[in-house]
Amino acid sequence: MTRPKMLGIDFQIWASSHQSRFEDQLQQLLPQPDIAPQRLHAAMRYSVLDGGKRVRPLLAFAAGDLVGADSMRVSIVAAAVELIHAYSLVHDDMPCMDNDVLRRGKPTCHVEYDDATALLVGDSLQSLAFQLLTEHQLSNDAVQQLAMIKLLATASGSRGMAGGQAIDLTSVGNQLSVPELEFMHIHKTGALIRAAVLLGAQCGSALGEVELARLDRYGKCVGLAFQVVDDVLDSEADTVTLGKTAGKDAKQDKPTYVTLLGVQAAKQMAAELHSEALEALAEFGEPARRLCEMANFILLRKF
Amino acid sequence: MTRPKMLGIDFQIWASSHQSRFEDQLQQLLPQPDIAPQRLHAAMRYSVLDGGKRVRPLLAFAAGDLVGADSMRVSIVAAAVELIHAYSLVHDDMPCMDNDVLRRGKPTCHVEYDDATALLVGDSLQSLAFQLLTEHQLSNDAVQQLAMIKLLATASGSRGMAGGQAIDLTSVGNQLSVPELEFMHIHKTGALIRAAVLLGAQCGSALGEVELARLDRYGKCVGLAFQVVDDVLDSEADTVTLGKTAGKDAKQDKPTYVTLLGVQAAKQMAAELHSEALEALAEFGEPARRLCEMANFILLRKF
Repeated sequence: MTRPKMLGIDFQIWASSHQSRFEDQLQQLLPQPDIAPQRLHAAMRYSVLDGGKRVRPLLAFAAGDLVGADSMRVSIVAAAVELIHAYSLVHDDMPCMDNDVLRRGKPTCHVEYDDATALLVGDSLQSLAFQLLTEHQLSNDAVQQLAMIKLLATASGSRGMAGGQAIDLTSVGNQLSVPELEFMHIHKTGALIRAAVLLGAQCGSALGEVELARLDRYGKCVGLAFQVVDDVLDSEADTVTLGKTAGKDAKQDKPTYVTLLGVQAAKQMAAELHSEALEALAEFGEPARRLCEMANFILLRKF
Repeated sequence: MTRPKMLGIDFQIWASSHQSRFEDQLQQLLPQPDIAPQRLHAAMRYSVLDGGKRVRPLLAFAAGDLVGADSMRVSIVAAAVELIHAYSLVHDDMPCMDNDVLRRGKPTCHVEYDDATALLVGDSLQSLAFQLLTEHQLSNDAVQQLAMIKLLATASGSRGMAGGQAIDLTSVGNQLSVPELEFMHIHKTGALIRAAVLLGAQCGSALGEVELARLDRYGKCVGLAFQVVDDVLDSEADTVTLGKTAGKDAKQDKPTYVTLLGVQAAKQMAAELHSEALEALAEFGEPARRLCEMANFILLRKF
């Protein structure tokens, strides 16, 4: 598998039109800023809107594309996943965690508002994610919809994303092995990315176990690749390009793929994960085109 | 309606047997402490187990009793509500919120562990609440179960409990009117108490709109009564009796029913809410006995 050199214009149009429509949808789905409590709602909107490449939502849309899922349904699961992601960033940036002041080129929520508000913003975004998944029909089968909500709850909690962050906390200043680092990232970033892929696909007609397992392997690979690329970007880019504080992992003495493997080996690892992700999709053929392109997109962002 | 002087022995046996069985169930439902990430799981268990009178779960059990609901189903919704309540206490106690060091007679989570862990404990408890509601069957109708999850998500979020806390933040040092204080508490404490009552009842056969409206009126009244009683206790009891820091509302210059109305008028208000709660139940007759007793229990605790 050769490494892709660039992203096709067709994909770029697909991605940017989905990003733009998704932004409009988030605008509608978040509580309006004139509804009480106004300050909390303004802070929730500040923390979610107008930011990020929306990688997880795009993965959900690409997975929905694979199965011809209803795009309105996919946009709801995409929003729920993105709200969980956004809440984790707000809490992660707080002084008691990473104490970061810059996110997506703007002051972080606790800097723009205050710590207590940031705490409540994260809490409320999580509740809103589950509210969205229950107030819209996402499947013709309500039992299947319950399973979808369970998937997101599990991916978010102590044995998913939040658990990964807990492992991250204990890793500061410790020498981790590559498998230990992988275990952390499979939880911290991977769980939610896998959930985005599976939930997008589950908005369509039911997939068999074999197909779901392939999709899950794809999700696992792009989730890890995403983190490896993140580590490389964090070590190479500057703060302005990144839109968040660069080099902070090294400064905080956090183990990364770059500190453990070196930049070249980390890039090689990302390329291998990329290949494995594409292999997992091979049997799907043409309908998996957007998922393939998303794997390229994740590998190629910024390096 | 005369004010009850004491709680019957039959109720006390009912309550304590439910409390004790519920504690066992929480032990099982929370992640075991030997599962990774161990420290996070230990901190989650520390924050939830062995604490409190479990008022919300008891309300769910009493409401389940009204409709003859399956007690296993009720215990799951009771656990979900209690996990949301426990997460809110963990976050509320953090230095950036109330900065409290004592809860249920023990050091608060961030004191026993650390701030970052407390943040993740709260986040994970919220996810676990929604996970529980999806991995157990709570209704014969999955669409009804989705509506139950929506109810808890809405009661927890920015237009429910978390929103009430945001209003509470802005109230410090401000002179509120009684209606403004009521608006805050209907969200901060009331939303979750109402959810406990309605969810317990919804574990049984479907109630009509009129009956649900009565139950909701009961929930609203006991929720507010609970808060008024809390304010009275906070102003009168000492820290040892309370198991949490006493007199902190006044110290933090927070408006309470006692500071706005005085102790006597606050007690009178609690008694009136108690009467209204019982009136809302009158049409149900004998099956609402436990709900009536719970209204007494809430009014009579400690004064």
